[in-house]
Amino acid sequence: MKKEAEFIAGGGVTTPRGFLAGAVKAGIKYADKRRLDLGILLAERTGAAAGLFTTNKVKAAPVLLDIERLRKGTARAVVMNSGGANACTGKQGMADAIETAALAARHAGVEPEETLAASTGVIGVTLPMDRIRQAIPKIVLSREGGHDLARAIMTTDTVPKEAAVKADGFIIGGMVKGAGMIHPDLATMLCFLTTDARVETAFLRQALRKAADLSFNMMSVDNDNSTNDTVVIMASGLAGGEKITRGGRRAETFQQALNQVCIYLAKESARDGEGATKLIEVKVSGAASLKDARLAARAIAGSMLVKTAVHGSDPNWGRALAAAGRSGAEVTPEKTELFIGGTRVVKDGEPVAFDKAEVVGHLDGKEVTIALDLHLGRGAATAWGCDLSEEYVKINAEYTT
Amino acid sequence: MKKEAEFIAGGGVTTPRGFLAGAVKAGIKYADKRRLDLGILLAERTGAAAGLFTTNKVKAAPVLLDIERLRKGTARAVVMNSGGANACTGKQGMADAIETAALAARHAGVEPEETLAASTGVIGVTLPMDRIRQAIPKIVLSREGGHDLARAIMTTDTVPKEAAVKADGFIIGGMVKGAGMIHPDLATMLCFLTTDARVETAFLRQALRKAADLSFNMMSVDNDNSTNDTVVIMASGLAGGEKITRGGRRAETFQQALNQVCIYLAKESARDGEGATKLIEVKVSGAASLKDARLAARAIAGSMLVKTAVHGSDPNWGRALAAAGRSGAEVTPEKTELFIGGTRVVKDGEPVAFDKAEVVGHLDGKEVTIALDLHLGRGAATAWGCDLSEEYVKINAEYTT
Repeated sequence: MKKEAEFIAGGGVTTPRGFLAGAVKAGIKYADKRRLDLGILLAERTGAAAGLFTTNKVKAAPVLLDIERLRKGTARAVVMNSGGANACTGKQGMADAIETAALAARHAGVEPEETLAASTGVIGVTLPMDRIRQAIPKIVLSREGGHDLARAIMTTDTVPKEAAVKADGFIIGGMVKGAGMIHPDLATMLCFLTTDARVETAFLRQALRKAADLSFNMMSVDNDNSTNDTVVIMASGLAGGEKITRGGRRAETFQQALNQVCIYLAKESARDGEGATKLIEVKVSGAASLKDARLAARAIAGSMLVKTAVHGSDPNWGRALAAAGRSGAEVTPEKTELFIGGTRVVKDGEPVAFDKAEVVGHLDGKEVTIALDLHLGRGAATAWGCDLSEEYVKINAEYTT
Repeated sequence: MKKEAEFIAGGGVTTPRGFLAGAVKAGIKYADKRRLDLGILLAERTGAAAGLFTTNKVKAAPVLLDIERLRKGTARAVVMNSGGANACTGKQGMADAIETAALAARHAGVEPEETLAASTGVIGVTLPMDRIRQAIPKIVLSREGGHDLARAIMTTDTVPKEAAVKADGFIIGGMVKGAGMIHPDLATMLCFLTTDARVETAFLRQALRKAADLSFNMMSVDNDNSTNDTVVIMASGLAGGEKITRGGRRAETFQQALNQVCIYLAKESARDGEGATKLIEVKVSGAASLKDARLAARAIAGSMLVKTAVHGSDPNWGRALAAAGRSGAEVTPEKTELFIGGTRVVKDGEPVAFDKAEVVGHLDGKEVTIALDLHLGRGAATAWGCDLSEEYVKINAEYTT
């Protein structure tokens, strides 16, 4: 059993040593400046950095900029906004992303080339650069600024989502936004992670990919993935000590701690999915391979019919089996075993008598667990999703107008 | 330009010569027998038959039975029910499917081995065989029975969906049910097609596959596909004349007519999707390949964000581009051109000024067209879907309970 890292109460991106943050009301979406919508995350020292970005072929300008700037494996700052995605905005969009990063760099006293940008909001609208130019100099960077920054990137999120854990001499902090368009292989979802650990870039890249595969790539709100998905980690190195490298002494400890932060943030994102009233956790075991387990778990967590059944506390377990069956995973129906909460509802592919009141009671709760044992092999994976409510439709039918 | 076959007003599965049908209220779902839920489609002569079935690894008992029985390439009858899917019902389910087919065969005076079965409804509940045994002898088969049969297979469908076309000396009829769980590569969707044409089995199989690829495999209601999806075509041969064979004189005419019936039924299914208020037609052109065009069209038609935007008449075109971008199709953002209705909203990947009132007016209509030209090649495809409404969630949150 791996030792778990310890969560730090009230922790976030500025909890690790060497990070400052701040945010302002720039009026990007709402001219009346009713909310925080622009901010900066700054590392006090240049350290290793890594990023993961949307696999969508339509990538927002800041995503294209960040991919380019992270090639060298370091970064100092990220400027981020909600209220506009700066996607499908052409050459003007790229010019605006570059200018925004340059303004943030000047304000923070770092180089433009080590400054990243991230945007979220409506696609196809250029950023209001006049407001951004006025607002950036007003951003106050502080050790306490992480919480404001977590609010500044919210869109339809109902709560900010932050975490920090303490492990063997280092801290990892993080925050995420993303309530819609969340799906395997990233979504709009912006996630920023920080650590004071001294880490090698090559290791950091690999660790981020592994952690994302267990967390953000296993959650789904609505099967769409976005033009802007971004996960960035920056390391200040201020914890000192021996550098953490691939295969090195603390590599596994770091990986474990990073997994914990990412899984926590992924679950909180699914729980806060647009219109969501329940978190759904799907555990698949006994799959023929890890890949199959991941496919089946994600298919169940993402199924609209499963999501609506959970919403209505309807123990319609056939929908979970059907979702696994179309997932691409190997499934031998007569071997399947399915549990809702702790209650077995299917054995050997057939319904078994169960206490319906008990299952409905579980489905009425805030966290619903569906466990499928395929009885074919040793592949296992966990995915997270949320129920689908009328509220989701209302939110998404009225987003731009 | 291919010559279009002529639609026959009020046509259905018993419009081609040599087909009888009938349905009764068996009380399968509702003990009070409030609705038609069991029926038989009968060919007066044994002829060629072909079927397409769900790709889901969890297949309902009747699907497994039909796949086996269609190997010989002929069939005389199909017994069908709503109110229970007979899926995930194990050995009992298969025994029930075989018995139901045998009872229907005896009643219709044909061999059990040339009788197929089809079921739709809740998964995991065995069929009420006592009621089915009592009801089958009461089914009256007639030339007018197609309309009753189309009603008997409805579940959450709001209207029966039937059609028939007349071409070069033959007629093709069809009916479909399927309002939820509809998605590329079939869904619960039951579709039965009939023709009086004399056709070779090998050709019929190929023609059915081609027609399905242009119709049922291009429609999506909710991205789920079911354990029961079935498309079956039976040919009575009573139109006489030269047998239609692959590459033969009337092969193209038959294919064209079959395409028309299937596309009509697919569109009507999407229009009648659960909770749907609008039909969405997505035309992708200029794709690098046919495959890419199909991927992009289906991704847009199936996107929850596109569907909710259409529901709210929100001209949020970025969602359509984002869906194409994640579809797997080759997309060069700066070449894309997008139209909503007749109005161009994106050119060279960037928004262009458009008359918002005009676009909203189109989105307020009952049929919404989204056209995407990728400007990369000659691949073109059309997909159909429907908007996503609060009503969809209500229907699916309360299905079994």
